[in-house]
Amino acid sequence: MTSPKPAGNPLATVSPPTFAGPAAPAPGAVSALRPLRLDQVRLRDGGLLGRWRRRNVEETLPHCVERLESSGNLANLRAAAVGETGRTFAGMWFADSDVYKTLEAALWELADPDADPRLRIFAEDTTALLARVQRADGYLNSYFTIAEPDQRWLKPVWSHELYCAGHLIQAAVAAGRTGASPELVEIARRFADLLVERFSEVEEVCGHPEIETALAELYRLTGHRPYLELARRFLDLRGHGLLEHGRFGPRYHQDHVPLREAREVAGHSVRQLYLLAGMVDVAVETGDLALLEAAERLWDDAFRTRTYVTGAHGSRHRDEAYGDPYELPPDRAYAETCASIASFHVSWRLLLATGQARYADELERVLYNAIAASVSRDGRHFFYSNPLHLRTGHANAGEEAAGHRLPWYSCACCPPNIARLMSSLPGYLATGDADGLQLHLYATATIEAGPATVEMRTAYPWQGRVELAVTADGGEPWTLALRVPSWCTAYGVTVDGEPARAAVDAGYLRLTRVWEGTTSVVLDLTMPVRQIRPHPRVDAVRGCVTLARGPLVYCLEQHDLPPGTVLEDVRLHRDGAFQAVEGFMEDHVKGEDPPIVITASGSTLDTGSAPLYTDHRERRPLTSPLTLTAVPYFLWGNRSEGPMRVWIPAADTG
Amino acid sequence: MTSPKPAGNPLATVSPPTFAGPAAPAPGAVSALRPLRLDQVRLRDGGLLGRWRRRNVEETLPHCVERLESSGNLANLRAAAVGETGRTFAGMWFADSDVYKTLEAALWELADPDADPRLRIFAEDTTALLARVQRADGYLNSYFTIAEPDQRWLKPVWSHELYCAGHLIQAAVAAGRTGASPELVEIARRFADLLVERFSEVEEVCGHPEIETALAELYRLTGHRPYLELARRFLDLRGHGLLEHGRFGPRYHQDHVPLREAREVAGHSVRQLYLLAGMVDVAVETGDLALLEAAERLWDDAFRTRTYVTGAHGSRHRDEAYGDPYELPPDRAYAETCASIASFHVSWRLLLATGQARYADELERVLYNAIAASVSRDGRHFFYSNPLHLRTGHANAGEEAAGHRLPWYSCACCPPNIARLMSSLPGYLATGDADGLQLHLYATATIEAGPATVEMRTAYPWQGRVELAVTADGGEPWTLALRVPSWCTAYGVTVDGEPARAAVDAGYLRLTRVWEGTTSVVLDLTMPVRQIRPHPRVDAVRGCVTLARGPLVYCLEQHDLPPGTVLEDVRLHRDGAFQAVEGFMEDHVKGEDPPIVITASGSTLDTGSAPLYTDHRERRPLTSPLTLTAVPYFLWGNRSEGPMRVWIPAADTG
Repeated sequence: MTSPKPAGNPLATVSPPTFAGPAAPAPGAVSALRPLRLDQVRLRDGGLLGRWRRRNVEETLPHCVERLESSGNLANLRAAAVGETGRTFAGMWFADSDVYKTLEAALWELADPDADPRLRIFAEDTTALLARVQRADGYLNSYFTIAEPDQRWLKPVWSHELYCAGHLIQAAVAAGRTGASPELVEIARRFADLLVERFSEVEEVCGHPEIETALAELYRLTGHRPYLELARRFLDLRGHGLLEHGRFGPRYHQDHVPLREAREVAGHSVRQLYLLAGMVDVAVETGDLALLEAAERLWDDAFRTRTYVTGAHGSRHRDEAYGDPYELPPDRAYAETCASIASFHVSWRLLLATGQARYADELERVLYNAIAASVSRDGRHFFYSNPLHLRTGHANAGEEAAGHRLPWYSCACCPPNIARLMSSLPGYLATGDADGLQLHLYATATIEAGPATVEMRTAYPWQGRVELAVTADGGEPWTLALRVPSWCTAYGVTVDGEPARAAVDAGYLRLTRVWEGTTSVVLDLTMPVRQIRPHPRVDAVRGCVTLARGPLVYCLEQHDLPPGTVLEDVRLHRDGAFQAVEGFMEDHVKGEDPPIVITASGSTLDTGSAPLYTDHRERRPLTSPLTLTAVPYFLWGNRSEGPMRVWIPAADTG
Repeated sequence: MTSPKPAGNPLATVSPPTFAGPAAPAPGAVSALRPLRLDQVRLRDGGLLGRWRRRNVEETLPHCVERLESSGNLANLRAAAVGETGRTFAGMWFADSDVYKTLEAALWELADPDADPRLRIFAEDTTALLARVQRADGYLNSYFTIAEPDQRWLKPVWSHELYCAGHLIQAAVAAGRTGASPELVEIARRFADLLVERFSEVEEVCGHPEIETALAELYRLTGHRPYLELARRFLDLRGHGLLEHGRFGPRYHQDHVPLREAREVAGHSVRQLYLLAGMVDVAVETGDLALLEAAERLWDDAFRTRTYVTGAHGSRHRDEAYGDPYELPPDRAYAETCASIASFHVSWRLLLATGQARYADELERVLYNAIAASVSRDGRHFFYSNPLHLRTGHANAGEEAAGHRLPWYSCACCPPNIARLMSSLPGYLATGDADGLQLHLYATATIEAGPATVEMRTAYPWQGRVELAVTADGGEPWTLALRVPSWCTAYGVTVDGEPARAAVDAGYLRLTRVWEGTTSVVLDLTMPVRQIRPHPRVDAVRGCVTLARGPLVYCLEQHDLPPGTVLEDVRLHRDGAFQAVEGFMEDHVKGEDPPIVITASGSTLDTGSAPLYTDHRERRPLTSPLTLTAVPYFLWGNRSEGPMRVWIPAADTG
């Protein structure tokens, strides 16, 4: 095929919106669970998830749009639209992707008929702009239009061209599913058709995965199989050293071993996780169980040996990479926000494919800890790397390891990634079909699920009580499945006030019955304060515990210590009393559920001028007692900048 | 001054060799101790230092010369000599510095009249080549001659031009002091004169310090004060943000705070330490006690909060940098070999300036551990980064974090740096003057010290017995000072077989007497196995100890564990018996002193398929007893590649 403009295909007409959410499998896919449509789930105010989503639309999304303007991302596109070549490009050469992610976020929001009309304007204006940037042959990339027009497709290791294309396609999938900006689907298809033409015969892959999951999603939207086949081709080609160039080496790009043979996650963690998402998508759509198995094996490896207790991934600043097994330093955790979001995406896909509760457990862990911590309470400041320990004397290393959340980054991948996750959040609460509903995340929400409507009210994660009102018209038996998180060892459930006899089956309490009228179901998940200890091979936090309650991991902040106390001198008394108490955070917004903090007994060491290394027989430092207050990790750094630690050394281990 | 070629100065004639060693202060300098001349100290075979020096001249130096040829460093210079511009440059843009360091190594060796004649040929040929490369105005840099001729002096943050100039000058100082290749002194002076002309009026510094110590040394060699004044100018200008460009930021270049105000070491560790060497050199030559105090304060900070137990510096791979206080991860220790060598250089300078034993203690620690470990037993393989823990499942990260020593590096700064240190080693053993001799490092050697000749015989560091035969002709009382290392708490000394009554005074046993004929002095430093524990704020090795004996730090290697045992599951019984035993290393060379290894009792945990995070009440893993063998850290990785750890978790801390 040599035509500069592909002929298109007969399916390239705009379909009506399905309101499917992210990663909704096609009807014939391997899928143990089926996601609900976005219009079936409505998060309500009053709960944490609802508040996060509202903050996202009121603060984070407008902030991203402002920053796309002030940082020049949109100016790049405008210059490309009028064909300004040789112009200085603003920001990173993959700056278009920030626009696409923000656009995707706006488009998911537009599934809500009551969405802010400014979002629709942004979506339509941006779509119109992209239409002008798109070349006659379908190509669309502002950097390779205005800055290096002669280098198109010539730099697969570094260009991020397919990565950017992938994010454009993801936005278009949101546009197609929600029915907002249907022109964007056309733009993405023209580009995707060009990709099919350009890449179906050559042995080339992109240095940064993303195109694989995007093409699979576009296939799901359109039914056009060449997209899925190209996604599979990219997966099949990876791991054969096509990207073995430069100082990073093939592991960095997950190009060191064929994907089906890989036994360990490796290299740049965001790339690894985006690739995993694409693997699951292609596996379930093609019925490739070996590929699905490989994805599960890699997930297992990550979660068995390389995931932070907050759910974050990526131990190394150098190369933004996974470390060796059990290499999990809390202070130098890279733990990029995008990796947390990508981990959420992968776990969601594996949950749908397999129905296994462990994937839902992971959705919850990473959402309430690593992801939630990456955003400030004001919704306009963000962490890029998410340490589990900010040391006393920390030298603020700018964007690379900021001690506080910044409003934007020169590589601004994370903030709009948060925006698109938060705006699609309703899509991840539950799955279901005519036989039943599976509740994975608890939040105040209304869920229309096949034959039933479920009103859910809860102060989760502060409290473990979840109240459900199930309204249905009788008929066939139908199963309400309630996830009992793996952290929960004591729970109870009542139906219309009567204790229900239901055991946990593979992570879910299943209530099967004919539902008639409105039935009250109350789930009580007991939330004691827990002490978590690490695997003995995790050297970096030996002798430490993390405090947790429900799905939340807690931390100590300098803010709560007596003046003059050095955080690294603080020790926890593991046998002391732990109390969960309300309402501590001074800046707590009235009307919100008060956060729960944990008080514990501890001590502080008088390390004085102790030398760095001592003979083991030297006297140990003296200690003084201290009452400790631990706060939810996701709220750290909101009151003041200062040292923080998730892993607390136990008093009996020095 | 606009003349393209400086007129030179009246001192630019070749002086006779002084045989002064590295960093020998000028007569009027602030200097508590005076180094001996290189021709006063002769290392003998039979001891470890003598063997290392012999290996250096027989293996490492020829290997470096071969690699300068095969890697293109010499080809770059040859191309520059014939004025080939626009040519592709081989290797790093500062590749000249590898040539200079190798040349410096050869020149120190040439202080020995019995030196291998091939070294003289290499030195003379290279000097002749450099004379041809040097431009009419004195400029000398092959990269900015052949690759970017129009960029001379325009890239101070990155060019390394003054860094390369510094290494050329260091080589020339060795040439001048040993009398070998006197033309090299002329070449260096012509370049230095150009630097004085170019930089004395402008506010510019080099991104990579080195020129400061080099110019101070050239002043010492020549007495030409403008060199010293330019060195001081570079120090005065640093810390004012002149280098605040690019993603690294000013801390990386030690350009964030004026040097006299700095309270913490920061940024790229090799740059920090080279800068410190220059600070001490300039301080002692100008009598600038505030600058000396600043250097001591920074050394204190490094040694109190940021030095590995092996003496290595630099916690972070990212930016090759110092970390925050007490951030000392053993597995991701960057611990660059050049930083260890630079630390040795700084401690030597501070020892001379102050006479304090702690600096000599540090010379010993870093030499026998971090520096010694960076070279293979064959002298032809090198570590660039020197971890204190190579994890099970370690993914070999190529040059950046090799699991074994490599023959060369694309950035080959370390191997020739080792060569120049080892070839100048005799210069660091002792100091002295007419009043006495101070012995800092113990080795089999002959020392001519003022009125006395000292024959030293010892199997140090394997054994703590040091036998000295002091031959003198009587006359005035004269003091023999013997360092008692800080690790040593029990020692004895005899003079002609009789116990001597001498107490340790500030780290040295001082024997003052009239020495007549040959007197036998025997020092016995007791060397029990020690357990070293870290400061409680060093989170990365909490609950661990390092085994040590004498100046040597020990480690566990996978090689010595039963098959199937995972190193990270091994625990040490701190209350068990520790034994120092001889002759374990299988590849031990006959005729050498047998290495001493340590046996200890330990156990291995059955961590099986334990999850990454567990409730603290879960059962602890079962243990099985195990006898452990710890080997000297400096010998690790010579028998097989495999996991290794210096810090061993104690059985009672999980």
